[in-house]
Amino acid sequence: MLHSQSAEIIPSRWYNVVPDLPEPLPPPRSGSEEKSSIELLNSIIPAEMLRQEFTFNRYERIPDEIREQYLQVGRPTPLVRAVNLERVLGFSGKIFYKFEGATVTGSHKINTALPQAFYAAQEGVPEIVTETGAGQWGTATSMAGAINGLRTTVFMVKVSYNQKPGRKTVMGLYDGTVIASPSDKTDFGRRVLREKPDHPGSLGIAISEAVEYAISNGYRYMLGSVMNSVLTHQSVIGQETIAQLEMLGETPDALIGCVGGGSNFGGFVFPFIPGNRETEMIASTALEVPKFSKGEYRYDFIDSAGILPMLRMFSLGSDFVPGKIYAGGLRYHGSAPSLSILIRNGRIKTDEVGEEEVITALKLFARTQGVVAAPESGHAIASALRYVRNPDNAGKTVVINVSGHGYLDLGIFGEKK
Amino acid sequence: MLHSQSAEIIPSRWYNVVPDLPEPLPPPRSGSEEKSSIELLNSIIPAEMLRQEFTFNRYERIPDEIREQYLQVGRPTPLVRAVNLERVLGFSGKIFYKFEGATVTGSHKINTALPQAFYAAQEGVPEIVTETGAGQWGTATSMAGAINGLRTTVFMVKVSYNQKPGRKTVMGLYDGTVIASPSDKTDFGRRVLREKPDHPGSLGIAISEAVEYAISNGYRYMLGSVMNSVLTHQSVIGQETIAQLEMLGETPDALIGCVGGGSNFGGFVFPFIPGNRETEMIASTALEVPKFSKGEYRYDFIDSAGILPMLRMFSLGSDFVPGKIYAGGLRYHGSAPSLSILIRNGRIKTDEVGEEEVITALKLFARTQGVVAAPESGHAIASALRYVRNPDNAGKTVVINVSGHGYLDLGIFGEKK
Repeated sequence: MLHSQSAEIIPSRWYNVVPDLPEPLPPPRSGSEEKSSIELLNSIIPAEMLRQEFTFNRYERIPDEIREQYLQVGRPTPLVRAVNLERVLGFSGKIFYKFEGATVTGSHKINTALPQAFYAAQEGVPEIVTETGAGQWGTATSMAGAINGLRTTVFMVKVSYNQKPGRKTVMGLYDGTVIASPSDKTDFGRRVLREKPDHPGSLGIAISEAVEYAISNGYRYMLGSVMNSVLTHQSVIGQETIAQLEMLGETPDALIGCVGGGSNFGGFVFPFIPGNRETEMIASTALEVPKFSKGEYRYDFIDSAGILPMLRMFSLGSDFVPGKIYAGGLRYHGSAPSLSILIRNGRIKTDEVGEEEVITALKLFARTQGVVAAPESGHAIASALRYVRNPDNAGKTVVINVSGHGYLDLGIFGEKK
Repeated sequence: MLHSQSAEIIPSRWYNVVPDLPEPLPPPRSGSEEKSSIELLNSIIPAEMLRQEFTFNRYERIPDEIREQYLQVGRPTPLVRAVNLERVLGFSGKIFYKFEGATVTGSHKINTALPQAFYAAQEGVPEIVTETGAGQWGTATSMAGAINGLRTTVFMVKVSYNQKPGRKTVMGLYDGTVIASPSDKTDFGRRVLREKPDHPGSLGIAISEAVEYAISNGYRYMLGSVMNSVLTHQSVIGQETIAQLEMLGETPDALIGCVGGGSNFGGFVFPFIPGNRETEMIASTALEVPKFSKGEYRYDFIDSAGILPMLRMFSLGSDFVPGKIYAGGLRYHGSAPSLSILIRNGRIKTDEVGEEEVITALKLFARTQGVVAAPESGHAIASALRYVRNPDNAGKTVVINVSGHGYLDLGIFGEKK
């Protein structure tokens, strides 16, 4: 039998890569001397999140309530051997894919949304707040809020808000309140609207609004990616994959995933790192967002508004404006600090794929495996196709992380821009 | 642990309810003396389908290739205990749901599309043909064609074709050729268009076009529901559910599903029937399509054009035109003959739910379990909520079949018609 998805596969602890990094993880830093953005962060995220952000513990126990919630949302997700894809490619090795799109909210984002909402609920706040661009994070946050008894407010970049009615609908089903950003709900939003009433919005503005709204109401702010605690939560992906491969008696030669802020990728590959120098790990980014080839390794702001702290990471600059690509989740200018270290020291390799090639890869994956993958995940699939088509890799075993489904992003298959 | 989805749960044989029915299954009948629609059917469906249609065998071995394909498309599907829903309802019993929406094509339809495409491929034809209304069946057929090396042509009711661009896109990803019906590809379509160039189409017209196109080209026609062989293939749903409940040590008091032609419902409940008189089985239909309360039990045409044979079944008349409801899959006028017999003799109960109540149920299910279910499945969920809220059913164990996800049918949550 080719896979197993028994509930026992859900791990009992999260894996934190920090103690296994080749150098210490540079801590977040405040961008300004007078106004500490670290203190700001501390005041809007749950204390338990803050502890996990700075811990050196290799493992953190997953609370029973969260394991139960993971089960409820569709964990463990399937690990499937892509036999039809192998056949069509004439590949002599094995291709597996881990399918995070099988969670009920359709992407890996739910893996960290659940614990963050749970910790917020434990602190007695009535509401959680975040921003969303492409929509996956707002969807996961709304659902996590709903099942943890919290109201959820999502500031959604206005241009996405108008282009993606399906995303709004789904967040609404989870009782999320979705506000087009810039909005009249915050001082910052009102200021932007005064200057430019038809402003299309940006992730930076949406973050600023969400943070202001959280502070002024005493609510908790939810972190979607980049932060170490978020990557730790996402380690359920890689740990499940390890267990599933072991049950099949398989050892992977290569792990391939896509990188926006780095959370699905880190969550997928980091658990393979301890005691392993053999498995290739390939981080696939958008050619249009060349953060690893053209970005600098330096302290830069998490958000374009400079409200949240700075992180030491590969960055194209927090004011970087990428060309329009459908993989909204990959448009982010930076990448998680831990991932950046492992890319700098060569443990993790990188690849860059343009949108045309991604569309071709998504189509092949749909036609052979039936999976309508998210545009972001299409980058991982495209990089995997490059790997498999390289004659040097004949006979190898590859695992792709398919971070989400693409049912709410079918525009990528529409008419050309 | 609350569930298990190990591959071993996929059954090795299909279950055919015919030998366990309280009376013989009335065979399909030709509607006309001169022109036998039975012979017509025989000439366009694979011989193996025809054999399965008339067999009295209780079990049919599932070919290894099909078991492998089931695994590829996401079987076994999860059986999840809906603990959040139980909590919100304050229900003292247990609610489980079987989630067919977790298959890669998003509904149960793939369970029969795969074997039918496989048998067609074995007969050496290059192409399979069918019609689709709501779109789930065309989606499953296209994907089944793709992985069995066949071209697929889908005649899609024009009004759906125009209203559901996402469905077209997904079928196209599976290399399906989607043709708006009425079309200029068939004599029948051209005749309709001559009389009424802006005809919105109907399932009857689409069936007529698909059958004509299959005959004139020597292709194979795919049966979406109602026929006994189709219900037999769908028995994987119920058999998996039995295995999953056994692993949990649970015995269901009630099984609840929705009924269009009856294939997801029959596939879900029939495997529970042998030697079991205790488990309640509730078939939920649309109040707007009251086939069991207002329909007659008689021979009636499968399709409104009267091209395919007649079946003895509950029917509102093959010319029945339901009001507009989003659950397109439930608008069918009839119901599978085996299901009709079991409803007549009282073994299976019925329930009718209107669209407003269905929308409320879908919202509650999303908010508690995170699942965006298909409008059709919303009827099953609504009937389950009625069951659970009945004080007589306190403490009972209920299993709902959620036949599909609703990501491509979010219109039901939009503005009121």
